[in-house]
Amino acid sequence: MKQIKLKVKTKTQKYPIIIGYNLHKNLGNLIKKNSIKFRKCFLIVDKNVPSKIISNIKKSLKQKKVYVHLFNANEKNKNFGNIYKILEIILNLNFSREDCIISIGGGITGDTSSLVASLYKRGLKFINLPTTLLAQVDSSIGGKTGVNSKHGKNLIGSFYQPNLVIADTVFLNTLPRREIICGYGEILKHSLINSKNFFNFLDKNYKKIFNLSSPYIEKAIYESCKIKRSVVEKDEKEKGLRKILNFGHTFAHAYEASQSYSKKLNHGEAVVLGIKTALNFSLKNSFMKKREYELIVNHINNAGLPSSLNKFFKLKDLEKILSFMVRDKKNNSSKINLVLLKKIGSPIFNREYTTKRIKSFLNQYLID
Amino acid sequence: MKQIKLKVKTKTQKYPIIIGYNLHKNLGNLIKKNSIKFRKCFLIVDKNVPSKIISNIKKSLKQKKVYVHLFNANEKNKNFGNIYKILEIILNLNFSREDCIISIGGGITGDTSSLVASLYKRGLKFINLPTTLLAQVDSSIGGKTGVNSKHGKNLIGSFYQPNLVIADTVFLNTLPRREIICGYGEILKHSLINSKNFFNFLDKNYKKIFNLSSPYIEKAIYESCKIKRSVVEKDEKEKGLRKILNFGHTFAHAYEASQSYSKKLNHGEAVVLGIKTALNFSLKNSFMKKREYELIVNHINNAGLPSSLNKFFKLKDLEKILSFMVRDKKNNSSKINLVLLKKIGSPIFNREYTTKRIKSFLNQYLID
Repeated sequence: MKQIKLKVKTKTQKYPIIIGYNLHKNLGNLIKKNSIKFRKCFLIVDKNVPSKIISNIKKSLKQKKVYVHLFNANEKNKNFGNIYKILEIILNLNFSREDCIISIGGGITGDTSSLVASLYKRGLKFINLPTTLLAQVDSSIGGKTGVNSKHGKNLIGSFYQPNLVIADTVFLNTLPRREIICGYGEILKHSLINSKNFFNFLDKNYKKIFNLSSPYIEKAIYESCKIKRSVVEKDEKEKGLRKILNFGHTFAHAYEASQSYSKKLNHGEAVVLGIKTALNFSLKNSFMKKREYELIVNHINNAGLPSSLNKFFKLKDLEKILSFMVRDKKNNSSKINLVLLKKIGSPIFNREYTTKRIKSFLNQYLID
Repeated sequence: MKQIKLKVKTKTQKYPIIIGYNLHKNLGNLIKKNSIKFRKCFLIVDKNVPSKIISNIKKSLKQKKVYVHLFNANEKNKNFGNIYKILEIILNLNFSREDCIISIGGGITGDTSSLVASLYKRGLKFINLPTTLLAQVDSSIGGKTGVNSKHGKNLIGSFYQPNLVIADTVFLNTLPRREIICGYGEILKHSLINSKNFFNFLDKNYKKIFNLSSPYIEKAIYESCKIKRSVVEKDEKEKGLRKILNFGHTFAHAYEASQSYSKKLNHGEAVVLGIKTALNFSLKNSFMKKREYELIVNHINNAGLPSSLNKFFKLKDLEKILSFMVRDKKNNSSKINLVLLKKIGSPIFNREYTTKRIKSFLNQYLID
């Protein structure tokens, strides 16, 4: 079985990300090969994962005692109360710190499961099998755990690194195209903040990636993980550099929140809109040249990614968007912190702007 | 103002512990001198802390925006629901990651506050002012956070290092003698697992320490912190060595739990009983010589520390005690993990015993 392995090394943990097709069938062996030892494991599984997959995984873990917990993964259920419920279930099973939690699902399942893992007896072993493209290229790397509060997304959480991440591309086959685009938004972001070469690869091969053709999809995941890894290794706890991963996201989070996280605008779509907004801000403030701007915007349009902010928002939504931007957890003052772009591969971070400045920019941008 | 400073350096954080009299009045300056920057702080204060102390602290923090939250600190309130309540209060105040939580209280307040600090937007700044001897010599050092579950104490938590710990000895003046003895149990434990010199100092000066005479009390706190620091620096996440701090505690936790954490037997008293039990087990299993055993037991008796297990438990309690020992979070299998002692300064750890073996020992020990 062909697989690509990428090693992540942070201050607190070393672990591999393994990318390949149908890897879940081989989970037991992969755990053994990577010297992860435990007797009991608790599977937290998105309830949409086909039962065939669960039975494959159980078969491959036949040496272990396996418990399965089905999780109705949605933003509403990604809450603190459910963390407690799951913790109590595992306490009831008398799991020790040497036992293991395995997450099988998208970012919501992964963020929830890893927070449980970090809190159970101050941390037990954690293996993540992200099942969406978005989770494979982004949320499964870097150790961010979290749940939502009524005040916003991911406001309660911790940093906790997994022992193993397995990006099995078989899961992608069942995803609707909209979900693929959702993950692609983050892949594009990684190229923009880090690598002209990777951007060129995407610009040339995006159709093959959307069609999940091998080896294009694997390469897109691998390069994306590699970029995120290099940032996370340098700044695990987001004290500085890691903020560049937030490119486009200050806008994106506010867009999602203003739509009350409805299905009209999913996270990846909001990210693409946010990236384009940040690019436009970079252009208007003379950080970026027109030619570079057009190169990226053409890619967004050619690939059929969401592009027009005013399809989703009207001028009357402006105050709402701004209020969410002020509340963003990456802001340390009343000013709004933005990541901008000079050119592909050259981000600028820790730029702070007044709400007034952002308001006047967004006002114009929504009319344009 | 005389103060002793001890620097702690773990993989994830460097921070000082400052020991001295009336330091809380100088909190603002100590924060400044140690380069801890924030604009807003949220004080979580045990409701038994005198209001004069709170107003002193507010005065010394006059450059900052200060919010005070009174916490009814007891084992019952040290729960996951209260973590959520406090998180929501701070979210409502729109604290950023660069702001600060300050805990003023004993171990319960500190463990609860630090868990809040570790979870708020994946971690904000944390300063701890432990107000009991037990918290000053033990729980405030090492970054363990936690709350209780119905399944046991501290089963939900994280590892999160503070930015500053201030052990102000003025707080000790108002503690009942029983609380001083409670802290002394951990001081004694630190001497036993690490230093014959320190044990000799304690054996000579315990009366002065109980009377809080300077510089004996400061030295007892300082040496105790130093020993805990050396262990924690080597093994922050309790993968191995740190388990020696558990000397006496596997028994102690079970004793407390069997009494439903009632006031009849507090944590420190249970620890002294647990230490004596572990010493007796070490003796009976020929790890420790009779002479060494008597040296320590004489100290326990002379100092008037709780010593007779059968004052608190009868033979009929044995099954209950054993069931709690099996559930201890440091056990990785159905066997019971004990830390034992060869001689003062030479602990033995990772010894596993069957429930049957422990039962037959405790049975005899309760009769003796």
